[in-house]
This record gives sequence, C-alpha cells and structure tokens, in this order.
Amino acid sequence: MTTPESATRQTVQAYHQARFRGDIATAAQQLADRFAFRSPFIESDSPTGHLAGIEQLVQIIDRIEMISDLYSGTDAVLIYNLHTSTPVGVQRTAEHFRLHEGRITTINLIFDASPWQTIMAGAGLQTL
Amino acid sequence: MTTPESATRQTVQAYHQARFRGDIATAAQQLADRFAFRSPFIESDSPTGHLAGIEQLVQIIDRIEMISDLYSGTDAVLIYNLHTSTPVGVQRTAEHFRLHEGRITTINLIFDASPWQTIMAGAGLQTL
Repeated sequence: MTTPESATRQTVQAYHQARFRGDIATAAQQLADRFAFRSPFIESDSPTGHLAGIEQLVQIIDRIEMISDLYSGTDAVLIYNLHTSTPVGVQRTAEHFRLHEGRITTINLIFDASPWQTIMAGAGLQTL
Repeated sequence: MTTPESATRQTVQAYHQARFRGDIATAAQQLADRFAFRSPFIESDSPTGHLAGIEQLVQIIDRIEMISDLYSGTDAVLIYNLHTSTPVGVQRTAEHFRLHEGRITTINLIFDASPWQTIMAGAGLQTL
C-alpha cells in the first residue's frame, strides 16, 4: 500500500538522486508547474532555474553523507553533509520540501553561506 | 497510545517551547547526559553551554514562524523562520534533533550566518 509518507519519500528521493547525478530532466519531472526554490544564493520560480549550476556543483562534491530524512504527507526534510573538494570542506545542509499532489512545489535549502562568501570575495566574485 | 514518534514530538516540543521562553532548566531536562550542540557559531558538549546566550536571543526575536516539524522514533527536524528585530530580519532556520531513550543527544542548528557576520564585523566583534 502506498501511504502519503511513502509517496512523498519516493518523489523527494527521485529528485535528490537525479539532481546529484546531474540528471536535470528526471529531477525537474518531480517538480510541480508552479514551483519556487530558495537558498542563500538563489531565488527562482522556474522548475530548472536552480539546477542550472548543478553540473559544476556535482564536480566539487566528494560525497553526500545523509544524516536524517523525514517525511509526512505534504513535507520532507533531508539533513546531509556535503563533503566538498573546496576549502569550504563539509557543508552542513538542510533541505525542506513541500509537496502537492505528488509533486514538489517548494524547496528551501538552508546552509551557512559564510565560508562561500569568503572564497568568492577572495576570487573577486559578487554574490549578494 | 504513545508511539515513538509522539514521544519524540513531546520531548522536542518541550525543549523548543522552554528554550524560547528562556526557561533553561526545563529545556535542559530534555537533554541526555551525553549531549552535543552545533551551530555556525557554537560547538558545545555541555547540556546548558549553548543556552547561555538564550536570554539575549529571546529579546531580539519578534516571533517564531513554524514552517514544518517532522518526527521519527529517533530524529526530529524543525524548520522555522525566526523574525528578529535586527537588520538580519528573518533568519531561515533548520534544527535537527537526535534522541536516545526519550532524551535529546544532539542538536544541529543550521542557518546562514552571513548576515550576522556582517553585523558583528561592523561592531568589531570576532566570531570565527
């Protein structure tokens, strides 16, 4: 039997796995037509706008250490450590998903952007 | 009937409510003897070390907007917006709890510390 929780898990895991193997098409299939993404660096309401840089991101990720994943009928949260090959090192990350009718309507990515600010400032990049 | 999920919820909510009304004693009662806390600014393995500054924090919080709370037998995550009366404004926050035998063993607080860094740098405070 498919419970609301297991349906949420299936959609979020499909997105999560596809996104981190750089499969933008499969990731985008899990998103609703009306979709919004927010992180310290990006605000986007296009289904693929926030995935535009995913290939570069994948290249600097050594591994994804999943700490906790929790699901309800409408929401999910992934807590993971992103082990990067950059001076940032380990990025402790929380990702909150809200779903409607089996597809993801919002993603809220939360992490401490300070270490990235330092690197980008050193490289003369503007981020804010 | 008390499920593992509802027991987790009860402990985490008791901590959450007590902490934000500045009731350190009740908050600390929810923590295990072996406990570790981690945030962008604090690493502590004392049950009350991370609560030392809670009274000042409470004073700058206008309201706590809960976005999502999820529970399992061993883990919980709270996603909330902390509306502050500081130039930081709204702090988007994720808080991950792990529990053992009904008490909290770790808290992992995740938020973007960049806005605070800017304020503290302006005030000549050292944070890292």
